[in-house]
Amino acid sequence: MSEMLSGGTVKKKLRVGMIGYKFMGKAHSHAYRDLPFYFDTKVEPVMQAIAGRNQEGVQAAAEKMGWASYETDWRRLIERDDIDLIDIVTPNNTHAEIVIAAANAGKHILCEKPLAMNVEEAGRMLEAVNKAGVVHMICHNYRFAPAVRYAKQLIDSGKLGHIYHFRARYLQDWIMDPNFPLVWRMRKDVCGSGTHGDLMAHSIDLARYLVGEISEVAGMMDTFIKKRPLGEMSGGLNAEIHGDQMGDVDVDDAVAFLGRFDNGAFGVFEATRFGKGNRNTNQFEINGSKGSVRWDMQSMNELELYLEDDEQGNQGFRTITCTEGIHPYAGAYWPAGHIIGYEHTFINLLHELTNGIAENRSPSPNFEDGYRNQLVLEAVETSSVNKSWVKIPTTTILTP
Amino acid sequence: MSEMLSGGTVKKKLRVGMIGYKFMGKAHSHAYRDLPFYFDTKVEPVMQAIAGRNQEGVQAAAEKMGWASYETDWRRLIERDDIDLIDIVTPNNTHAEIVIAAANAGKHILCEKPLAMNVEEAGRMLEAVNKAGVVHMICHNYRFAPAVRYAKQLIDSGKLGHIYHFRARYLQDWIMDPNFPLVWRMRKDVCGSGTHGDLMAHSIDLARYLVGEISEVAGMMDTFIKKRPLGEMSGGLNAEIHGDQMGDVDVDDAVAFLGRFDNGAFGVFEATRFGKGNRNTNQFEINGSKGSVRWDMQSMNELELYLEDDEQGNQGFRTITCTEGIHPYAGAYWPAGHIIGYEHTFINLLHELTNGIAENRSPSPNFEDGYRNQLVLEAVETSSVNKSWVKIPTTTILTP
Amino acid sequence: MSEMLSGGTVKKKLRVGMIGYKFMGKAHSHAYRDLPFYFDTKVEPVMQAIAGRNQEGVQAAAEKMGWASYETDWRRLIERDDIDLIDIVTPNNTHAEIVIAAANAGKHILCEKPLAMNVEEAGRMLEAVNKAGVVHMICHNYRFAPAVRYAKQLIDSGKLGHIYHFRARYLQDWIMDPNFPLVWRMRKDVCGSGTHGDLMAHSIDLARYLVGEISEVAGMMDTFIKKRPLGEMSGGLNAEIHGDQMGDVDVDDAVAFLGRFDNGAFGVFEATRFGKGNRNTNQFEINGSKGSVRWDMQSMNELELYLEDDEQGNQGFRTITCTEGIHPYAGAYWPAGHIIGYEHTFINLLHELTNGIAENRSPSPNFEDGYRNQLVLEAVETSSVNKSWVKIPTTTILTP
Amino acid sequence: MSEMLSGGTVKKKLRVGMIGYKFMGKAHSHAYRDLPFYFDTKVEPVMQAIAGRNQEGVQAAAEKMGWASYETDWRRLIERDDIDLIDIVTPNNTHAEIVIAAANAGKHILCEKPLAMNVEEAGRMLEAVNKAGVVHMICHNYRFAPAVRYAKQLIDSGKLGHIYHFRARYLQDWIMDPNFPLVWRMRKDVCGSGTHGDLMAHSIDLARYLVGEISEVAGMMDTFIKKRPLGEMSGGLNAEIHGDQMGDVDVDDAVAFLGRFDNGAFGVFEATRFGKGNRNTNQFEINGSKGSVRWDMQSMNELELYLEDDEQGNQGFRTITCTEGIHPYAGAYWPAGHIIGYEHTFINLLHELTNGIAENRSPSPNFEDGYRNQLVLEAVETSSVNKSWVKIPTTTILTP
Repeated sequence: MSEMLSGGTVKKKLRVGMIGYKFMGKAHSHAYRDLPFYFDTKVEPVMQAIAGRNQEGVQAAAEKMGWASYETDWRRLIERDDIDLIDIVTPNNTHAEIVIAAANAGKHILCEKPLAMNVEEAGRMLEAVNKAGVVHMICHNYRFAPAVRYAKQLIDSGKLGHIYHFRARYLQDWIMDPNFPLVWRMRKDVCGSGTHGDLMAHSIDLARYLVGEISEVAGMMDTFIKKRPLGEMSGGLNAEIHGDQMGDVDVDDAVAFLGRFDNGAFGVFEATRFGKGNRNTNQFEINGSKGSVRWDMQSMNELELYLEDDEQGNQGFRTITCTEGIHPYAGAYWPAGHIIGYEHTFINLLHELTNGIAENRSPSPNFEDGYRNQLVLEAVETSSVNKSWVKIPTTTILTP
Repeated sequence: MSEMLSGGTVKKKLRVGMIGYKFMGKAHSHAYRDLPFYFDTKVEPVMQAIAGRNQEGVQAAAEKMGWASYETDWRRLIERDDIDLIDIVTPNNTHAEIVIAAANAGKHILCEKPLAMNVEEAGRMLEAVNKAGVVHMICHNYRFAPAVRYAKQLIDSGKLGHIYHFRARYLQDWIMDPNFPLVWRMRKDVCGSGTHGDLMAHSIDLARYLVGEISEVAGMMDTFIKKRPLGEMSGGLNAEIHGDQMGDVDVDDAVAFLGRFDNGAFGVFEATRFGKGNRNTNQFEINGSKGSVRWDMQSMNELELYLEDDEQGNQGFRTITCTEGIHPYAGAYWPAGHIIGYEHTFINLLHELTNGIAENRSPSPNFEDGYRNQLVLEAVETSSVNKSWVKIPTTTILTP
Repeated sequence: MSEMLSGGTVKKKLRVGMIGYKFMGKAHSHAYRDLPFYFDTKVEPVMQAIAGRNQEGVQAAAEKMGWASYETDWRRLIERDDIDLIDIVTPNNTHAEIVIAAANAGKHILCEKPLAMNVEEAGRMLEAVNKAGVVHMICHNYRFAPAVRYAKQLIDSGKLGHIYHFRARYLQDWIMDPNFPLVWRMRKDVCGSGTHGDLMAHSIDLARYLVGEISEVAGMMDTFIKKRPLGEMSGGLNAEIHGDQMGDVDVDDAVAFLGRFDNGAFGVFEATRFGKGNRNTNQFEINGSKGSVRWDMQSMNELELYLEDDEQGNQGFRTITCTEGIHPYAGAYWPAGHIIGYEHTFINLLHELTNGIAENRSPSPNFEDGYRNQLVLEAVETSSVNKSWVKIPTTTILTP
Repeated sequence: MSEMLSGGTVKKKLRVGMIGYKFMGKAHSHAYRDLPFYFDTKVEPVMQAIAGRNQEGVQAAAEKMGWASYETDWRRLIERDDIDLIDIVTPNNTHAEIVIAAANAGKHILCEKPLAMNVEEAGRMLEAVNKAGVVHMICHNYRFAPAVRYAKQLIDSGKLGHIYHFRARYLQDWIMDPNFPLVWRMRKDVCGSGTHGDLMAHSIDLARYLVGEISEVAGMMDTFIKKRPLGEMSGGLNAEIHGDQMGDVDVDDAVAFLGRFDNGAFGVFEATRFGKGNRNTNQFEINGSKGSVRWDMQSMNELELYLEDDEQGNQGFRTITCTEGIHPYAGAYWPAGHIIGYEHTFINLLHELTNGIAENRSPSPNFEDGYRNQLVLEAVETSSVNKSWVKIPTTTILTP
């Protein structure tokens, strides 16, 4: 018997409109595409439309990535009533305007990190989604690596005891060549900051997720190469130089800060784009009174775990390949020992988001997290300028 | 301007019919799904139909994995003229019949490994596809990890010099519990062999790919647990026991062999399902006169490379994360340092297959490789029984 | 022919007197014992005498470790004219008095780290040795691991280019049990500080050695467990509790600081005794414009090196086992690939010291380094109290 | 009070005479020198005399390494009645004659590995020491790495359950250059075999120690470079070529074999001097029904341990740094986390030997082990020539 599938599933659709379509657009698009394959989600994502200013570019992207339609003005996308979720993967300086418009239009929202250009903007954005009652998330995807999720379970279960230390490094090296052009990620008016918002925001999110709020920081930021050739503004790794004019780099190349968590733990944070040989080293180590964990995104399936309850003589950091049924999300993929990669962090995040939308709640990390992250980012910036410790406000009037 | 995409690409379609839908069915299905997202293939795969005996099961699988239709009899699938490629992911004892039928029907064929139950079968299969002039591949997916592909480039370029040593280990541990039931992978009538065809076939393929043909082998094979409870025959890792009857395990739990390559290199091979703690350790190391490489599937993005031309004092194995544009396939995915996983080996393989079909050639590894692999498998079995060295025939009448 | 060796070498003797004989006493004693076996030093160390207050203890130590005689008053040792070099391995609060007395007596001096209780003391000590014209060294032994020494050569040769980043961690976990007694290493009057002077001083020394002077710091220090049972004051890892009285811990359990080097490089430093699972993790990573190095004392023979000049595609951190003839000190020991351990760092240091004495110069790290290290230690302490950045004085009147 | 130590210990002396003084002579000499420093042995080694044919060489060695006297004829050394222990570090072709002479003279004996040129010789040597009733050991030093010793304890305690697999690799690369001269280690008349007796003998010893006797083997051996320039016969890594004559290499460059242990376990063994980039890679992995261990001499302080009893989700290989008081021998050295090196394996071995002599017993590995090792070595050679499996005799008439 041969049967055509009538697509007769009665699962509710979640019609997605995405604004932007570069690196993050690819990662998000892929995740929508693969989500139903791996997970039995409560709503079914439909790749309805993407928006971008350049018609040729956006049309090609839509075709390549499997979106049903496209818009050349993001406002049009938000106006469409066949869109339930707005996914924002544009540069930081556009987030606030889009988010507020989308919230006002009653759309659920997924926004790339960092949430905003500054705390003030982030506050308004959080206010907007809260007022509109829409579901919102910020795309800190590293939380959704099974090994990170499992570390969180271990910490929450008390296995590591009282946490004394969190230390994180996020090191890249793609702009070390002084002749690499001044791309958009190095412009303050576009990004708000450089390495800080791009990389450090992720480490702060992991810290807040795993250990809790940070109460106080002392930071330093600097720009090692202060003038660069002008070139392909929208470029990534292979951006080209145009002509021989130079421009000022007005964002940080590197940032480091000390922080104290609410529970008294030490936080030591460092992020740089000048970490030669580190293509994407995103690591943390957490020491508690009863155990420790270590993680590195470049071997993201593995969690190193030390437990003091291990028999004497047998104590040591063990390497857990978090690919077993018991590990978060792992059951959706492959048998034990068969690893997943970068893109799966986005699929896992979307799994949470779609379920959140089905249940009308905003899973973590949401805009509250984005806002609090921004508080830390800004405190580090202030601290760096003032060369002083800066306290992070612990309460906010913004939560409804 | 809002535009619906009319799907107006003129790319030729490749209509796929897959027979079987379990673990490998999932891996293949996913790969068809993702292939056009990542690669600009010469033909566009269409997930036309899958076949399976159990209607409920095959229907659910079709829906879940995105196949447009299903059949409950694989012969019906082969008869359909809206199918261009037959993809076989069923147990080994069905490969020959299906392949020959598909070839006779003029379908291109992708077949899971090992190709056949024995050399004789493999020979007939190779003959059939050659006679039919269809495109054929065997699914040795590990060749398609970027790091393995890059190792091949290094060897071919002469960077490692004359190869003296190939050593491989493929270690799993999922059936070590004596109470684990006698599933199909432990039945000779279904699989032909146990660990040998399941794991060792992969190591042999990597050896042939990277170093060349093996001329002679001496092997040992054994079954450590000779009786097991009967249970869920079709089961995988979580198979359940049914009742309290026991059955004979008539395939190998572990196998090891020594081999000599045509070029004189030593080969040392070991595969087992009794490697406690090794969920899926699939490693090799190659030593040449000028350099060496090491690889482990569990950190599949990384290639360890030693080059004697490195400056004295600076010599050592370096860890290359094969995620840069220059590394095979890597450009299709994410920026440098963002890793991919197990499933991507299948996507890369399909990229080669679809291009091969577009150009009417059978990319490696094809049935010739499957046949030669089977020669080695069988020689090791003979050697193990006879406790002697066994030569591998170097010529075959089967190639047209 | 059988021949007794008459010991007829005409090499000048260096008669050593050591004050103290616990952990560091063992490490130093062993190094004197092994030095002539491995190296052809310019003077020959003679283990003349050790001093300690407890007669039974010092006598047993002398016998066990191979010292020819002992004293129960260190002043007597300094008075002896059959002593050329005073080696000080006593707690920090005794260093200044002993050093000044030894210098006044015209003895060469090797002093354990940290040099002093504070900058003022360190200044007086440096003044004393300079005035006396004796040879002096401070025992920062980690500089003398072949891999660290080799890293220095790479940096000096320009292979790593301009240095942008130095990051170090020194993590231990031996006092995390709240019931571990308040031993001498947790008393400010004995040590001056806790983790800071014990562990961080080493990281500061490595930083200064490899990258250069630090101009400015912002630090935090804290004591996680503020009261501990009283017990075996002189104890190490296995110290026992005596009775049920509690005492105040008045030194830091953990310390972290940000620093800027004179050349603009970022320094991120952390040291703790609360790094569960880290028995003695002493790591650094340095990123330069052309390359990077990483090192960890727990695999001290290995240096990880990244060079951007490596061929594209082949770039990655390589692991150099620094046991080849070309690596510093390695030729004195075993063939390539045969590793050495902790104790060899002391032998290598003594090799430098004895040669320095033969040539009447004070090899690095000497008291000038100890003094500058103390400047950094004190600046971090001040910074931690004041919650501000503190500049390190760059000039000193103390050098003659 | 100043006191000269009168050396008044009443510990019984063990007067050592060593024959040979090159690489192994250095390792042994150092171990005698350091033994009393670290261990409280039952007898005290005295470095009485060494023997060597070249007067200048042996005298210099004696002075450098701390031996009290020397002989230019080893027979003279054996005749001396101020010698209790004969330590043999000469090439293999001299072992039998020296051992038998020393046994007949009533000396205790430590002999370098492999014990003999062949089984017949080894049998006579074992017979001689048994008849003489002297204490004997063979210098398989790797057994005495704390991590290996600890692995043995784990296996003996049943922690790993029934052992299914032992796999070992011993890879070096020092003779890969075809222009490297034909040194003594490549001459059959001097060594009996090449890589086989030099490296594989160690792996066999570890296998026998950790898993038990091997009952049957199938091996292959080959010489990759069959002619080499003549040169500095006695040379090591830096041997020089003399003139332009070539000689035949009549020993194996590489060897591999499959083995079955008495308990049914699989053994896979490989040793080579053509493992480019592997300076001294000496590894094994053991898989049991309940756990596994992995070890590599290049990080010899670490043992990787997998235990299936670990909580689900937390399972993985842990890295134990075997430097804690609970680990064998580790208490004699440094605090936890402070590693030891190659030379300490010899010190630990001598600790066992001296205690054995004090108690008039021959600790493992003794000549019985050396003999059984030789049975395996010879079986592999026979197997390689005959291209067949060869059984290892399980009983011997030689034990008294």
